[in-house]
Amino acid sequence: MNTVTVSASKEYQVLIGGGLLSSLGKHAAALKAPGKAVIISDSNVWPLYGKVAENSLQNAGFETIHYCFPAGESSKTAETYLNILNFLAESQLTRSDMIIALGGGVVGDVTGFASATYLRGISYIQVPTTLLAMVDSSVGGKTAIDLPAGKNLAGAFYQPSLVLCDTDVLDSLPENVFRDGCAEVIKYGILYDSKLFMHLKENGLCFDREAVITRCVELKRNVVAEDEFDTGSRQKLNLGHTFGHAVEKLSNFTVTHGQAVAIGMAMAARTAQKRRICNAHTVNEIQTVLDGFGLPSHTAFSANDLRQAALSDKKRTGGTVNLILPERIGTCTILPTPIENLQSFIEEGL
Amino acid sequence: MNTVTVSASKEYQVLIGGGLLSSLGKHAAALKAPGKAVIISDSNVWPLYGKVAENSLQNAGFETIHYCFPAGESSKTAETYLNILNFLAESQLTRSDMIIALGGGVVGDVTGFASATYLRGISYIQVPTTLLAMVDSSVGGKTAIDLPAGKNLAGAFYQPSLVLCDTDVLDSLPENVFRDGCAEVIKYGILYDSKLFMHLKENGLCFDREAVITRCVELKRNVVAEDEFDTGSRQKLNLGHTFGHAVEKLSNFTVTHGQAVAIGMAMAARTAQKRRICNAHTVNEIQTVLDGFGLPSHTAFSANDLRQAALSDKKRTGGTVNLILPERIGTCTILPTPIENLQSFIEEGL
Repeated sequence: MNTVTVSASKEYQVLIGGGLLSSLGKHAAALKAPGKAVIISDSNVWPLYGKVAENSLQNAGFETIHYCFPAGESSKTAETYLNILNFLAESQLTRSDMIIALGGGVVGDVTGFASATYLRGISYIQVPTTLLAMVDSSVGGKTAIDLPAGKNLAGAFYQPSLVLCDTDVLDSLPENVFRDGCAEVIKYGILYDSKLFMHLKENGLCFDREAVITRCVELKRNVVAEDEFDTGSRQKLNLGHTFGHAVEKLSNFTVTHGQAVAIGMAMAARTAQKRRICNAHTVNEIQTVLDGFGLPSHTAFSANDLRQAALSDKKRTGGTVNLILPERIGTCTILPTPIENLQSFIEEGL
Repeated sequence: MNTVTVSASKEYQVLIGGGLLSSLGKHAAALKAPGKAVIISDSNVWPLYGKVAENSLQNAGFETIHYCFPAGESSKTAETYLNILNFLAESQLTRSDMIIALGGGVVGDVTGFASATYLRGISYIQVPTTLLAMVDSSVGGKTAIDLPAGKNLAGAFYQPSLVLCDTDVLDSLPENVFRDGCAEVIKYGILYDSKLFMHLKENGLCFDREAVITRCVELKRNVVAEDEFDTGSRQKLNLGHTFGHAVEKLSNFTVTHGQAVAIGMAMAARTAQKRRICNAHTVNEIQTVLDGFGLPSHTAFSANDLRQAALSDKKRTGGTVNLILPERIGTCTILPTPIENLQSFIEEGL
């Protein structure tokens, strides 16, 4: 088992290793005297891992209840969020109790937001069950729901009390979902770590899970420590996301988040090359790794549609969008781009 | 004009004085380069002060839009909150824009919560238009909505960028609403300041508004600086509120917040006397001031009903309720009370 300590407005640990789920109760009890523990999960994850989590918590002295909602991005709504808040209130949960988010990114984001706002904040533990959630959304305290107008438009910065990544649960992931998470893993390589990138290039889907997840969490930890509230360098984590979210949205979410981010990263690389920010070798390297993981790198949507979809995304400040563009593998730059120039950047990336 | 500086996770100023509303734009522009400003208000306040606020912001270079919802506690709901979030998203508000809460406690609480969570936090200015909101809810960053299960069950700690208290707007308050705010003013006297208490006893409803509001804001500022996240001494501000919220709830909110807090404070004093925490003189002083302001001090609800309603309130930790009881005018104590003893405390206070 590896341990990464995150120092943000709250200090907490991320544990990474095989079989950790069955020690959830022990780790939770180390944080807080056992009271009620509410497990929030979805219809995919609860049948697989609900019992293990519940037993572990009960053995450590917690009284457990659970709330389960339909799996999928379409549950990341205000409705699910309010249903959870009302469930917590009806269960008379108090600030000395605890919430467990057991699932992928949607479960983690919605549960985190409910935890951030129920009684103005109650302790919660992230137990991510997808690769994507382990390396990205479960660490760093960004919680959110989607609104009809766009993704992640409401949420809070609210750090968990613990993150527990049981690498064994990745075995039950459908391969396309695992692959989806790989896009974010590749992103860390492009952004910060050419050695990680080379390991991914050489090993493809067979990379060393515990080591790679730990490295990604360390990299994210560094970013969060430097810019918890996303006003500067943390924006680099949006590499591939401004264009990616636009693709995701236009496809009505039939293109998954990871596929969309892969396309977005490839587009950012091609744009960067045309602007002489990176060279052709960097573009090729990125293309090669995405191909090796079976991830897409192109979209058929038009530059005009992508621009419009990107502009309804929240990642802009007044009349400017901050684009993240690679300089070389391991180093990226933030380029504030006036909205009126956005379409030509997109055209260059297509 | 008086200025009180609040030092919490964010530092900001509270301005108190006559005629300040017409300088809203100037003060807002001093905080942030003018972009969009969204004024959120209710059906009582907008017709009275909307135009003044709007003109002031426009003269300072802001592009203004507004959102207005029906006045009253019954609007402090998840529905109003979501409607505001969707309005902000459809207006494509970004983090460089600004929100103005123009109204009483409900407007401030709901708008503050929407500001805390739209794009995970956007700047907002509190422009409280009731005495209650000026001395209490607009300062300190507690934002909230009610859930079906109880008051203020969801929300966030999120500090405003500025609070602007125009004492002239109090002239337009119906007398019963002004009186309602006086209950919270009296609370500050009982909690922290016997000199303030004596001024209120001597002057009744004709107290010096600018001086008293400034003093209350200073006292609240001190509390917030010491315990922003309400884990210790800030709980003293709940004096009168545990019993008060129960009365409010049982009455279906026909007993107003101020009346309920007045009853709750009188009950706390009578309980404290029976427990020999304060003497009869303190109880009489509190009764005299409440009478002088035309505020009630008794309720006809039964101890059993009050206990049940109080227990659905969020101000408890596990099996304990923290009761705030006066020792003498200017000094109160926090008494952690096991739930099973709550009913006898209530009976003593009736």
